[in-house]
This record gives sequence, structure tokens and C-alpha cells, in this order.
Amino acid sequence: DFLKALDEVKPAFGAAINTLELCRPGGMLPCGEAFDKNLKTAKTLVEQVKKSDRTPLMTCLFEGPSSTGKTALAASIAIESGFPFIKIVSAENLIGLQEPTKVSMIAKVFEDAYKSPLSIIILDDIERLIEYVRIGPRFSNLILQTLLVLVKKNPPKGKKLLVIGTTSEKDILESMRLVESFNIHMEVPSLKPSGMKEVLLALNFFAPTDIDAALSALGQEMPIKRLLMLIEMAAQGKEGEDAIAILKGHKKIDIHYFYDCLNDIESSKSF
Amino acid sequence: DFLKALDEVKPAFGAAINTLELCRPGGMLPCGEAFDKNLKTAKTLVEQVKKSDRTPLMTCLFEGPSSTGKTALAASIAIESGFPFIKIVSAENLIGLQEPTKVSMIAKVFEDAYKSPLSIIILDDIERLIEYVRIGPRFSNLILQTLLVLVKKNPPKGKKLLVIGTTSEKDILESMRLVESFNIHMEVPSLKPSGMKEVLLALNFFAPTDIDAALSALGQEMPIKRLLMLIEMAAQGKEGEDAIAILKGHKKIDIHYFYDCLNDIESSKSF
Amino acid sequence: DFLKALDEVKPAFGAAINTLELCRPGGMLPCGEAFDKNLKTAKTLVEQVKKSDRTPLMTCLFEGPSSTGKTALAASIAIESGFPFIKIVSAENLIGLQEPTKVSMIAKVFEDAYKSPLSIIILDDIERLIEYVRIGPRFSNLILQTLLVLVKKNPPKGKKLLVIGTTSEKDILESMRLVESFNIHMEVPSLKPSGMKEVLLALNFFAPTDIDAALSALGQEMPIKRLLMLIEMAAQGKEGEDAIAILKGHKKIDIHYFYDCLNDIESSKSF
Amino acid sequence: DFLKALDEVKPAFGAAINTLELCRPGGMLPCGEAFDKNLKTAKTLVEQVKKSDRTPLMTCLFEGPSSTGKTALAASIAIESGFPFIKIVSAENLIGLQEPTKVSMIAKVFEDAYKSPLSIIILDDIERLIEYVRIGPRFSNLILQTLLVLVKKNPPKGKKLLVIGTTSEKDILESMRLVESFNIHMEVPSLKPSGMKEVLLALNFFAPTDIDAALSALGQEMPIKRLLMLIEMAAQGKEGEDAIAILKGHKKIDIHYFYDCLNDIESSKSF
Amino acid sequence: DFLKALDEVKPAFGAAINTLELCRPGGMLPCGEAFDKNLKTAKTLVEQVKKSDRTPLMTCLFEGPSSTGKTALAASIAIESGFPFIKIVSAENLIGLQEPTKVSMIAKVFEDAYKSPLSIIILDDIERLIEYVRIGPRFSNLILQTLLVLVKKNPPKGKKLLVIGTTSEKDILESMRLVESFNIHMEVPSLKPSGMKEVLLALNFFAPTDIDAALSALGQEMPIKRLLMLIEMAAQGKEGEDAIAILKGHKKIDIHYFYDCLNDIESSKSF
Amino acid sequence: DFLKALDEVKPAFGAAINTLELCRPGGMLPCGEAFDKNLKTAKTLVEQVKKSDRTPLMTCLFEGPSSTGKTALAASIAIESGFPFIKIVSAENLIGLQEPTKVSMIAKVFEDAYKSPLSIIILDDIERLIEYVRIGPRFSNLILQTLLVLVKKNPPKGKKLLVIGTTSEKDILESMRLVESFNIHMEVPSLKPSGMKEVLLALNFFAPTDIDAALSALGQEMPIKRLLMLIEMAAQGKEGEDAIAILKGHKKIDIHYFYDCLNDIESSKSF
Ligand SMILES: Nc1ncnc2c1ncn2[C@@H]1O[C@H](COP(=O)(O)OP(=O)(O)OP(=O)(O)O)[C@@H](O)[C@H]1O
Ligand SMILES: Nc1ncnc2c1ncn2[C@@H]1O[C@H](COP(=O)(O)OP(=O)(O)OP(=O)(O)O)[C@@H](O)[C@H]1O
Ligand SMILES: Nc1ncnc2c1ncn2[C@@H]1O[C@H](COP(=O)(O)OP(=O)(O)OP(=O)(O)O)[C@@H](O)[C@H]1O
Ligand SMILES: Nc1ncnc2c1ncn2[C@@H]1O[C@H](COP(=O)(O)OP(=O)(O)OP(=O)(O)O)[C@@H](O)[C@H]1O
Ligand SMILES: Nc1ncnc2c1ncn2[C@@H]1O[C@H](COP(=O)(O)OP(=O)(O)OP(=O)(O)O)[C@@H](O)[C@H]1O
Ligand SMILES: Nc1ncnc2c1ncn2[C@@H]1O[C@H](COP(=O)(O)OP(=O)(O)OP(=O)(O)O)[C@@H](O)[C@H]1O
Ligand SMILES: [Mg+2]
Ligand SMILES: [Mg+2]
Ligand SMILES: [Mg+2]
Ligand SMILES: [Mg+2]
Ligand SMILES: [Mg+2]
Ligand SMILES: [Mg+2]
Repeated sequence: DFLKALDEVKPAFGAAINTLELCRPGGMLPCGEAFDKNLKTAKTLVEQVKKSDRTPLMTCLFEGPSSTGKTALAASIAIESGFPFIKIVSAENLIGLQEPTKVSMIAKVFEDAYKSPLSIIILDDIERLIEYVRIGPRFSNLILQTLLVLVKKNPPKGKKLLVIGTTSEKDILESMRLVESFNIHMEVPSLKPSGMKEVLLALNFFAPTDIDAALSALGQEMPIKRLLMLIEMAAQGKEGEDAIAILKGHKKIDIHYFYDCLNDIESSKSF
Repeated sequence: DFLKALDEVKPAFGAAINTLELCRPGGMLPCGEAFDKNLKTAKTLVEQVKKSDRTPLMTCLFEGPSSTGKTALAASIAIESGFPFIKIVSAENLIGLQEPTKVSMIAKVFEDAYKSPLSIIILDDIERLIEYVRIGPRFSNLILQTLLVLVKKNPPKGKKLLVIGTTSEKDILESMRLVESFNIHMEVPSLKPSGMKEVLLALNFFAPTDIDAALSALGQEMPIKRLLMLIEMAAQGKEGEDAIAILKGHKKIDIHYFYDCLNDIESSKSF
Repeated sequence: DFLKALDEVKPAFGAAINTLELCRPGGMLPCGEAFDKNLKTAKTLVEQVKKSDRTPLMTCLFEGPSSTGKTALAASIAIESGFPFIKIVSAENLIGLQEPTKVSMIAKVFEDAYKSPLSIIILDDIERLIEYVRIGPRFSNLILQTLLVLVKKNPPKGKKLLVIGTTSEKDILESMRLVESFNIHMEVPSLKPSGMKEVLLALNFFAPTDIDAALSALGQEMPIKRLLMLIEMAAQGKEGEDAIAILKGHKKIDIHYFYDCLNDIESSKSF
Repeated sequence: DFLKALDEVKPAFGAAINTLELCRPGGMLPCGEAFDKNLKTAKTLVEQVKKSDRTPLMTCLFEGPSSTGKTALAASIAIESGFPFIKIVSAENLIGLQEPTKVSMIAKVFEDAYKSPLSIIILDDIERLIEYVRIGPRFSNLILQTLLVLVKKNPPKGKKLLVIGTTSEKDILESMRLVESFNIHMEVPSLKPSGMKEVLLALNFFAPTDIDAALSALGQEMPIKRLLMLIEMAAQGKEGEDAIAILKGHKKIDIHYFYDCLNDIESSKSF
Repeated sequence: DFLKALDEVKPAFGAAINTLELCRPGGMLPCGEAFDKNLKTAKTLVEQVKKSDRTPLMTCLFEGPSSTGKTALAASIAIESGFPFIKIVSAENLIGLQEPTKVSMIAKVFEDAYKSPLSIIILDDIERLIEYVRIGPRFSNLILQTLLVLVKKNPPKGKKLLVIGTTSEKDILESMRLVESFNIHMEVPSLKPSGMKEVLLALNFFAPTDIDAALSALGQEMPIKRLLMLIEMAAQGKEGEDAIAILKGHKKIDIHYFYDCLNDIESSKSF
Repeated sequence: DFLKALDEVKPAFGAAINTLELCRPGGMLPCGEAFDKNLKTAKTLVEQVKKSDRTPLMTCLFEGPSSTGKTALAASIAIESGFPFIKIVSAENLIGLQEPTKVSMIAKVFEDAYKSPLSIIILDDIERLIEYVRIGPRFSNLILQTLLVLVKKNPPKGKKLLVIGTTSEKDILESMRLVESFNIHMEVPSLKPSGMKEVLLALNFFAPTDIDAALSALGQEMPIKRLLMLIEMAAQGKEGEDAIAILKGHKKIDIHYFYDCLNDIESSKSF
């Protein structure tokens, strides 16, 4: 089981990229300045790791509310880096394993990276990796201590490593001294109206005359993953038959049905 | 023991439906607007999962006080979906198992679902699945972390999954970040007088002239399961001999004996 | 050891009744209205389980201070039900066993019950079954979760089950959601003066002229088990030689020695 | 190791009495009214167990500060009962054993007792048996639950059992519901001046003219074990050579050296 | 490993004395009245154990701040007792062992002592033996309970035992009831100026004319171990070459360099 | 695995020095008075261990904020001591090992040191060695107790040992009594402007005319490791192509790009 698990986390390089592609199923859409700035900073980091010999280890933490696109952003940067070794360490591949096994698997990913000249490791949803829950609070100190050490451990001479972490629990990671263990910190916020507009325009599912109405219904803030789900719901249409036509551009989303869907979801939120 | 347990949770499809049928032993009765609205929303979700390719995973949480019919509602939706794979994950089938075994069994249900084009998984009484108790508080973090991951994990390409959770402990699940892990939230309330009236009329156990008296004795709120038990008690009659006649419609419930039963149960409650 | 333990909890039916008989070593004495009312309600429940097909599971919790006769009452109801399967789950038979073993044994009792058309299971002194202690507080969550599930689990089609629980710790069981898991709740109180009088008269150990003096010495409240112990002490007489004569009715309890015994016991209480 | 341990706790009857004799190395001295009253009550209990068939189980708890003679009193009662089965359950024989082993050993003592027509079991220093420490607080819930059950479990038909517990931590045992599990409670206090005088006179180590001086130096309260140690220290004399002469009655304790010893010990106490 | 460890704690008698000699590497210097008084009281205890038959067990606890010479004092008393069995139980010999192993080893030392007519056991740094740390607080309850029992357990007939404990954490041991388990308590304080003067004079490392200057620089209190370290540092001299000359008495400590060293150490303390 | 791990921590002497060299990858730069004073004090300690026979064990703790150069300083002192045995105990070599294994490995390093006439052991990042995290708080008491004992344990006759600890968590170590277990304490602070200037001048990456501007942008305090990373980022230049030219001295850092980098990093900090 353990070996099988190890195998799953150790895909061929191509496979690793495929796995990462699954982290942005909706693709990457333009969505505002904050996103652009983050992307630019991240790319500078990739360059520095590639070129500088004196900072062989750079570490960067993406922080933001749930569903704001942290994992997709990290995956995009990794994919576009062109580095020969990229891996994502995600709780999805660690389900039900015991703490020491998880530690071995995480450590293994770093050891493998130390053998490649240029590597990127994504530590996705760190609170999930350390099995954190606010009640208690409880978490795996074994895994936390492993991360605290690995995030600061230099790769061997001549090897270079970029570690990208993602989290929605900055405060708690801070009190675990994990935030300060990363060199660079980047905030990934919810979309503001201008960002939502970019998304709506890019998708082109609304009649141009409905865009402003839709935006003013959406309010001041929404995380991108939630916005995309909402649009998908609305795109089904009342009878659940509109989706294909809208995707092909033959039809637009019915703005009133969009209001209904938004309503369902909003009441869910205040539930 | 473990394998036997696995077998029990992995029934043939027909069997799974049979198991679900047991979740609504009293059948489904009309019981007011709130119920109708929930049913409609749930059906839209089923449709969206069936038709949309871009939201292959939808997750929905039913929340409400004890005995309000959450499990029966979830079972009904699953049965009526017509999906080829439907399973209920319930603490009843996990009695006495160790945490890692429970995790394996839960994960197995999801893995099986990932092989079917259309699946529904009911996570029934999540507080019981995670072995939660308010004193402490205590719960299985191993199982909780598993649910936190599984509820957000996309099925593989081309597969679609609807996860329905039920709970009477929304607040505690919220502080475990489990509520926000579900896309949609639905409230399943106790019956109001109008809902109770629909139930009484549908059962047709009372003389028409007694219905209003019965309703005004019942007060402002009662969960459906409790109401059905009370009516069953009253239907036995003082001598315990009336039940069959009432079921066949030859006799009606004696309203005074009904008051007695209600009294016994109410004093139980304020006990 | 485990198998031996299992054997001990799985006696032949006659044996089970014998075991239950041991729960009322002093026999059942008339002891006031509260007792009569409880007995009547309990018998109605037994009838309902026997006759109704739509409430195959009824669950009832006896709550009251230490020594008020909860176990004896539950045993009496079970014995007199005439049901083919009756079992008591008691901490006495679980001494020193590990939590998972206890869980297996408890679950086994329920599984056995599911095979009988009519069954009664007594969960005696639930706080002891779950190994509860106020300091901490500590308890076995494994066993608690098992009870939470079993107490709500319907027997299979055509089988019927009455579960009777007893406890002196209602508040704590309430905060564990165990109280609300039972359908019906019954209070078993300490004796009031009128109840004590019934007991004294039934035993006929006092001279008729001493009864009122004895009662007024006893005060406003005493649990029945304690009262019976006190009378037994007094019945020994100063020299420890009166017991047989009193039992045979040849002699009565010396009221002054009775005062002495009461004194010893009372000072114990305020100790 | 476990078997050897079992052997040690399972001595022949004579041996058990020998072990109990070691609990009163200084013998029993007259030491005041409280002691006399306790002894009398205890003897009544012994008689009741012997004669009454309806209270086959009596349980009595001795409570008092450290060193007040609880263990010696319990041992004396057991020795003088003449019961065929007497055993002391003491932490001294359980050193370093694991909780489940301790539980087995304690349960074994009760099972053995159930085979004898008349038995006494001393549960010595219950806080030590349950491994209690105030910080935390910590204790063995496994052992506590065992005691809670055993102390209330009736011996089989025709067998009779007296359980005597000793403790210096009444409050904590109370909040564990262990105090209320005993029928009778007896307080074993520190000596008052009159009790100390009885001890001094009985020992006859002081010159008659020094007795009052010694008493007024001793103050209002001292536990008997501490008083006996103090006298022993004083009896050594300054040069450590007087002990034998004093024992033989050829010499008396030097009252000034007695003051010195008392001083050393008192400053220890306020340390 | 365990057997090897056992071997190490079970040295030949001579060896045990050698081990104890290592506890006073700097030898014992005269250092004030408090020290003299402690020594005298301790010697009386040794005599009493040797001569009295009625107090076969005496127990004494040395308490004081870190580095005040508790271990050296205990070792000196043991060495000079001339008892055939002397042993020190110290955390140094228990590094990395598991709790049950430590318990076995400690119990073994007591069992061995019970075979010798006259024994001394030193329980050094009890807080370290029980693995105490203030945060939590945490400690080994297994070891604590063992000590609580062993410190009060009488040796068998005809054997005598003196137990000496040392600790810097009196308060915590008190709340564990370990302090009251010892008969006698002795305070081992930091040196006062008069004590320091005795030490400086005895060492004879300072020019007579510098003694008072040195003393007034030292302030009101310093533990002896710290004072000896400071003098050793100063004795190296600025170039690190003076030590031998000073030891041989050819040279004295440079008082200004002494001030520098004192400064380094003091700032360390207020750090 | 354990043996392999042991092997890795037990390198040949040369290897140990190589490992230590990796602790100062950026080399040691002059960086202000505080650093100079620390170095001097540390060297005195090395001399004292070498020469004094009466203080065979000296222990010194370096404390300061994250990234201030504690590990590099400790490594430098060890390397330059010329002692035949030098070892660093670091969490990097203990990843994922169990507590008892870590304890064995740490104890092994000390045992090996006891065989060498002159040894230095660095306990790097003690909070990481004891697996400390502020939430809880949690830590390995097993490892902590081991350190508490080892740091005070004298090497055998004729052997000498200097132990250097580093930590960023002085307060917590203090409440664990670990700080007071070290003889000497040294503070390693962040750089002040004068220290930063020394670093900038030594590196010679800025145009002389830019130094003051750079300094005033840097503010009042920055840890050395962070400063070196910032300069490295700036040295890449906007296009990531300047690094080599700057290293060779052909080019200087663009002060405006330096401002940008500083900005990125500072916002990270206040993030
Ligand atoms: N510019 C964008 N940035 C990020 N995500 C985008 C962007 N455009 C579209 N997306 C889509 O939005 C979704 C973002 O979801 P993602 O899982 O990355 O969010 P997250 O912040 O990691 O969520 P969680 O808090 O649950 O971990 C993805 O499906 C991705 O394809
Ligand atoms: N419209 C209805 N909706 C739900 N349940 C109904 C309805 N009509 C009748 N019932 C019956 O009411 C009962 C509802 O019980 P159910 O176990 O589903 O409640 P629950 O909320 O899951 O309770 P719990 O809080 O104990 O888990 C079932 O027996 C079901 O057959
Ligand atoms: N009417 C009665 N109801 C209950 N018990 C009675 C009655 N008459 C006599 N008894 C006797 O009183 C005793 C009641 O003790 P029982 O153990 O049932 O009390 P309990 O409430 O279960 O005590 P605990 O709190 O210790 O579990 C029994 O010995 C029983 O024979
Ligand atoms: N009348 C007496 N009652 C009790 N003990 C007596 C009496 N006369 C003399 N003794 C002696 O006093 C001592 C009492 O010590 P004992 O160990 O019984 O006290 P304890 O209360 O059990 O102490 P601890 O709190 O430590 O358990 C014994 O040595 C006993 O021989
Ligand atoms: N009169 C004295 N009493 C005690 N120690 C002395 C005396 N004279 C010299 N010394 C020396 O002082 C040192 C005292 O150290 P010791 O380890 O006994 O202190 P401690 O109180 O046990 O310290 P800790 O609190 O660390 O356990 C020893 O090296 C001992 O040789
Ligand atoms: N004078 C100096 N003192 C210390 N470090 C220096 C000095 N000059 C340059 N450096 C470099 O600064 C860096 C200091 O980092 P180091 O890891 O020692 O810091 P640290 O305080 O141990 O950090 P952490 O808190 O993360 O353990 C090293 O790369 C070292 O080469
Ligand atoms: Mg994510
Ligand atoms: Mg339900
Ligand atoms: Mg009972
Ligand atoms: Mg005692
Ligand atoms: Mg010491
Ligand atoms: Mg460091």
C-alpha cells in the first residue's frame, strides 16, 4: 500500500505535469491586477533560482481565502517554469496514511528534488498536509516539524530548489513559525468587481448588455472558483438544456436564471 | 472482520437501493413548503451533475435538528436520481471498527464511485462518522481529515459525483471547516403547523373533526420522525388493540388517548 | 479470555432471567405513586413494541439518583415482558476488558437481539459502560459512539427491540447527545415519606406503634436501596442476634437501635 | 513476572495475616475516643456481614490525613475478624506493573474472595492504587472504573464480603463517585492532646513528671505515625546510645533532647 | 541494552563509592553555617537508622536552588556513612530509556537495598527522574507513582534504609505529595557572603588584600557550583596561562580579570 | 534505516568539518561590534576548555532572532577550535525519525565525544531538536529530558567538552529550565546600520555613492541572512543577467532595482 502510494507520488515527469494540469481544470482566465502582479513576482523568483548560485533555495508562500485560485496559480508557475523536476505534495495522495508514512513520502519528494539541477515542489494546502483542525487545535506535529526543517534545508551544492506553499490558514501557520520559514509571501485575494468583469468578458457567456447587471448582482467580492461554479450552474439553464448552446456561443445565459442561481448559492453562504 | 465489513458496504446496486429504502421506513409524506423547496433544489443539482462537464463534483450538505428527515430526504434523492452508483456511508456499518479501517472503507467508497460515470455518495450523520462528542470535544481527526480531502477531490476525467452530507451539528462542522468544503447548503427544519397538517391529512388516521384539535395540541414545531412515532403510539389505542383497524381505515385515533401519548412524550422532552 | 467473556454474556435464556433476578435481590416492594406510574408507562411500551410494526425500535431511559431502584425496575420489566430474548449489558461483566473488546461484546448482544422476533436489552448504568469519570472528564469515546449508533439503529424487518437504559448521570449523557437518542425518558426518584411508609408496612419489621416514629426520623427523602440496607442493619439488633426472629415475625426492630443505625449512616453521608 | 506478582498477592491464609501484621509494626496503642468509636463501628460491620443474609456486601471507607493510622486500623479489623479470607490490595505489591495487569490482579482478589463464605478485602491507599496525582490531574481510569464496579458488585449467593478502603484524598475520590460507592464512611483523625497522652502513658518512655511538658510542646494535633517516629528519634538520645535502656525501662527520654527532635521535625514541616 | 543498563547501575560496592566521588569533583569546602548544620542533622539521621529498630526507614529530602551543592552533600553523607550498600539513582544513567524500564531499574535498586542490613539510596534530582517539565506540565506518572510508593515502603524485618532525595523543584514535588512522603526536609541555600569568604580563604587563590574586594563584587548570594566555575575562569588569566601557577600557589588571581569574568557571567544571567 | 542514519551522523572528522562549512555558505563577513565581542568571548571559552582541568564541561547558548547568523557563528568557532572531535546535532539529519531513535542518536554523539580528549558539540536550533511548536504547546519531552541531562553531565576524567546550543526561542527554553542548564549565554542580534555598512563594503557590490542610499533604505535592523538574500536578488538585475558581472566587479547593483527588491521583501514581511 505504502509502496503503491509512493509510486503514485513519483510519476514520470510528463505525468507530473499532467497531474498539475488537473489543478486548473477551468484553465487560467485573466482576472485582475492582483493576479498579474503575483504572476510577475513568481516568475522573477523562478528566474533567480535558475540563475543565482548563492540562493540555491527560494521559498514562497501563497496565502488567501478558500477558492481564490492558489493551487491553480502554483501549478501554472510550475508548469511554465520548464524545470526538469516538478512535484506537488497534496493531501489527496496521502489519504488515510499514517503520520510517519506521510513524513517519509514528503521527505522522499525533497530527496528526489535534491538530485535534479532545477526543481519545484508545491506544498499544497499546508493545513491539510499537517492535518490541522481548529478545534483542539489538533495537527500532526510530526509532519509540521518535517516541513519546518525541509523548507529551510539547503539543497546540496549545485542543485537549486523553489518551494511553493499554499494555505488558507495564514494565522495558524504563523503561530507555528511556518510562515516565517518561507522567504517570500504572496497574497491571493478574492476577485474584486474589475477582476470579475475580466472573467465574464473572457468567458463570453453573457449578452453584452447583461454584463453590468450581472456584475452589480455579484457584489464586491467573490473567489474565482466559486464564480466559475455559479456561472456553470446558470449556464445549464432552467431546463438543464442550455449548456452546450452557450458553450458554443449560440446562446447566452438567461440573466434571471443567473439571479436565481446566485440566490441559491448566497443563501447557502449565510446558512 | 474488515473484509466482511467491506463486503457489507459494497452491495450490488439493487442491494444499495434496498439499503436506502430502509432509510425511509415510513415512506415520504408531503410535509410543507420547506420540504418541497429542498426537493426541487436537490433535483436541480442532480441534473447539473448529469449534464455539466465543468462541474464534475457537486457537494451538498443537509443540516437540521434531530429527526427532521435529513437521511430520508438524502436517500430519496439518491434513489430517484437513477444514477448507476449510489452508496450511503453510515456509522451503522462502521460500529467498533478502528479509525484507520473506517478511513479505508470510506476512501474505498469514493474510489469505487470514481469508476462509475455518475455517482451519488451519502455521508450520513457526519458527526457520527467522525466520532464527535461535545465533551472534550473529541472526534477522529483521521476521519475528519479524510472527509475534508475527499469532499473537495475531483473525480477523474469523465466521471461525475454528487456528495450529499447530513448533520445535526452544523456549528461544530463549521469550525472544522467542513461546512465550507461543501458547495451547497440546505436547511431541513422541524415541521411547522401547516406541515403537520399535511402529514395528518395524508395519513388519514384522525377523524376530520379532530384534526384541528390534534394540531393545536401539537404546538408550533415538531420534527417529522417524532410526529410519526407519536401517531403510531396513539394508533395502538389504550388497550393496544386498535392499530390494525386504524391502518385499514375502519377506526380513527381516539383524540384523548392521543393527548395522553403526547403528554408522555412531552414530559420526556422536558425531563 | 475474550471468548470466555463472550460466553458469560451469552447465557441460555433461563440463565439470563436468573441473572436479572439477581438485580432485585430484595424483591420488589410497593413504594409509592412514582413507582406505579413508571411501571405502567413501561408496560405500555412493552405492548407497543409487541404490537406495532411501524415502531420496531423503542428506547427508554431511566434516570435517577444513586440507589433509587433503576436497575431493579428495568430487570422487572424485562422479566415480566415474556419476550424470548432479554439481556442485560452491565459493567460487571466487562471488568478489565479493553475498549474494543467491550464494543464487540455490546455489539454482539444487539446482533443476537436482531435475530429474535421480540427482544429487550438493558444498558445498565450507562456511565459505567462508557467508563465515565467527572474529572477530566474522561470516558471511552469508542464505547459512547457505539451506543449512540446502536440506540438508534433499527432492527431488521420483522424484528422488534426495546432498549432500556439506566443512569445516574443524566446531565453528562445529555451533553453527549445520548439522552436525546432515547425516545422516552422516565425519572426514578428517591422515596418520599409516603413511599417509605409503604415499604415499612410491606416488610412488617416494625411494631405498628413505631412506624410513625421511624418515618419521622427518616426525613423527607431516601433512596430505596439505602432504606433497605438501613432496615437490615437495624434488624440485626444490638447483639447481632435478632435478625432471624424479626424475619420470622417473632420480634420487631428495636426503635432505639434503629435510631443508632440511622445515625451512623447519616453521619457517613455528611462526612 | 506477572505470575510471580500474582503469587505474591495470593499468599496462604497464614501468610496474609503475616502481611497484615506488618501494617502495624508499632502495634496498636490506645489513642483516644475517636479511635475507640471507629473500632466499635467497624466491629458491628464485621458482625453484620457474618450474620445478615440480605446484605452480603458491606463496604466501608476510612478517610483521614496522612499517617493517622488508617492502614493499621483496617489491618487490625481484618486480623481480628477471624474471617477465612482476608487480603490487602496495596500499591506496594503493584509497583511498575501496567494498568491492565493491575486490574487483573485486583479483579483476581475479588474473584478469590467470592469463593470464600466470609471475606475481607482491604483496598489500601486508594489514590495510590489508581495512580492519582493532583497535577493534571492524572490517574488510571482503567483501575478507577474497575474499583467503581467491584465495590458495588454483590458476591454470589451465600458468600459475604466486607470491603474496607483507606484514603487521604477524600475530596478527589468524591468527585470520582468512589466515596458514594461505599456504604459507610469513617473519619480517622490526627491525635488530639488527650489521645497523645494515652500514647505517651502506654509507651512509658517519659518520666511521669515530663509528660505534661512533652504534651504541651506537642501542640494541638499530630498524626500517630509521626508521633511514634518522633518518640523513637528522641529515644536514641543525643549520643544515639539510649534506645535500649529506654526500651527496657531503665532510662527515660531526656526531655530537652525531645524538644530538639521536635524542633527538627517541625521546621521540616513548615519548610 | 536494558541488561547492560542494569549492570551499569549495579556496580560493585567500591565502584559505587567511586561513582559518588564523581559527584564532588571539586571536593567539599567549608562554606558557612547552613552547610554545617545540614551536615550535623544528616549525620544524626545516619546514626538513627543504624541504631533504632523501630524506624527501619528514614527518608530525607534536600531542597535548594540550582547548583547549591545538594548532590555533593548527599554523596558525602553516603560515602561517610560506611554503610555496606550505597547507591545513587540519577537521570544520567537512565538517558533514553523507556518509562517502564526506568521504573524497573529504580525498583531493582530498592530490592537490592532490602537485602543489605544497612543501605543508603540517593534519589538525585527527582524532577529529572520523573521527567518533569513546567510546560504542560508533563512528567512520568509511572515513575512518580513508583517513587511515591517506594519512599514509604518499609524494608523487610531486620533491614534498614536511609533514602536521600534532592530537588530544585520543591513546590512541584509538594503538589505531587512527594515532599510529604519524606520524613525530614533540609534546605540547601545559596552561599551568603560569609560562606563565600570561607570558600575563597580555603582555596587560597586570591591575594589576601583582594579577598574583600572580590567578596564585595560577588554580591549577596551565589550558589557554590557557580562560584567555583567563576574562580576557575578567573584562574586561567587573560592569556589562559596562569592556571597551573595559581594552583601551585605561585601566583594569585588578577582581581581585574576576575571582575571581567564575573561580568561575563552576570550578563549571562540577566540575559 | 536507523543504522544508516547513525552512519550519516558519524562522519569521519574531515567530513564533519565539511558539514560545518556548509553552515556558512556565504562565508563570514565582518558585521559589527556585537559580532566581534561574541567571537572573542567564544574563543576564551575554547581556551578554557583546552587548559583548565577543573571545568571539563563548559556549555554556551547562542540566542537571537531568526536568520541572525547563530548557526554560522557556532560552526565557525568549532571549525577554528582545532579540536579533534567536532559534531553538529541538527534536525536536518533527524527528519522523520521517531523520538527514541533521535534520543539514541543524540546520546551517541555525546558518548563519542567522551572518548576524545577535546570535543565540541553544536546543538543547533534546539527548538527544532525538541520538536517544539507554540500551539499546544507541544514538544518531545523525551528529547528535552535527554538534553537537560546531557548538557549538565560531566565527561569522564581527562576528557573535555564544549557544548554550544543555538535557539530563537529563548523564552520557551527558559521555562523548560534549559537556558539555566547552560553556563554561559550569548545574544546574537540583528544587524544595526553600522553592521550593515560593514557588510555592504565588504561585498563591494554597490557603487560607493549608492551605499548611503542603500543603508537608509534598509532601516534600523535586519538579520544578516535576510540582508544577504536581498543583495543576491538585487544582484540578478531586472533581466536576471547582471549577477556574474557584479560578482566579477565589472558592474554594480542598480540602486533602483535594489529598492524594488527590498519592497517585495518588506511587503512579504508585513503580509
Ligand atoms: N487566473 C486564475 N487564477 C487562478 N485560478 C483560475 C484563474 N482562472 C481560472 N481559474 C480557475 O479557478 C479555479 C481555482 O481553484 P483553485 O483550486 O486553484 O483554488 P484554491 O485557492 O486552491 O482553492 P482552495 O482554497 O480550495 O484550495 C481553478 O479551477 C482554475 O482553473
Ligand atoms: N417528507 C418527508 N421527509 C423526510 N422524512 C419523511 C417524510 N415523510 C415521512 N418521512 C419519514 O420520517 C422519518 C425521517 O427520519 P430520518 O431518519 O430521515 O430523520 P433524520 O433527520 O435523518 O434523523 P436523525 O437526526 O436522527 O439522523 C423517516 O422514517 C421517513 O420515512
Ligand atoms: N419497588 C421497587 N423498585 C425498585 N427496587 C426495589 C423496589 N422494591 C425493592 N427494591 C429493591 O431495591 C433495590 C434497588 O437497587 P438497584 O440496584 O436497582 O438501584 P439502582 O438505582 O440501580 O442503584 P445504582 O444507582 O447503584 O445503580 C434492589 O435490591 C431491589 O430489590
Ligand atoms: N491505635 C492505633 N491506631 C492506628 N495505628 C496505630 C495505633 N497505635 C499505634 N499505631 C501505629 O501507628 C502507625 C500508623 O501508621 P499507618 O501506616 O497505619 O498510617 P496511615 O494513616 O495508613 O498512613 P498513610 O497516610 O501514610 O497511609 C502504625 O505503625 C501502627 O502500628
Ligand atoms: N560544602 C560543599 N557543599 C557542596 N558542594 C561543595 C562544597 N564544597 C565544594 N563543593 C562543590 O560544589 C559543587 C556542588 O555541585 P552539585 O552538583 O552538588 O550541586 P547541585 O545543587 O546538586 O546542583 P544541581 O542543582 O545542578 O543538581 C560540587 O562540585 C562540589 O564538589
Ligand atoms: N559575521 C557573520 N556571522 C554570521 N553569519 C554570517 C556572517 N557573515 C556572513 N554570514 C552568513 O550569514 C548566514 C547566517 O545564517 P545562519 O543560518 O547562520 O543564521 P541563523 O541565525 O542560524 O538562522 P536560523 O534562525 O534560521 O537558524 C550564513 O549564510 C553565513 O554564511
Ligand atoms: Mg487549493
Ligand atoms: Mg439521519
Ligand atoms: Mg443500577
Ligand atoms: Mg496507609
Ligand atoms: Mg544535583
Ligand atoms: Mg540556525
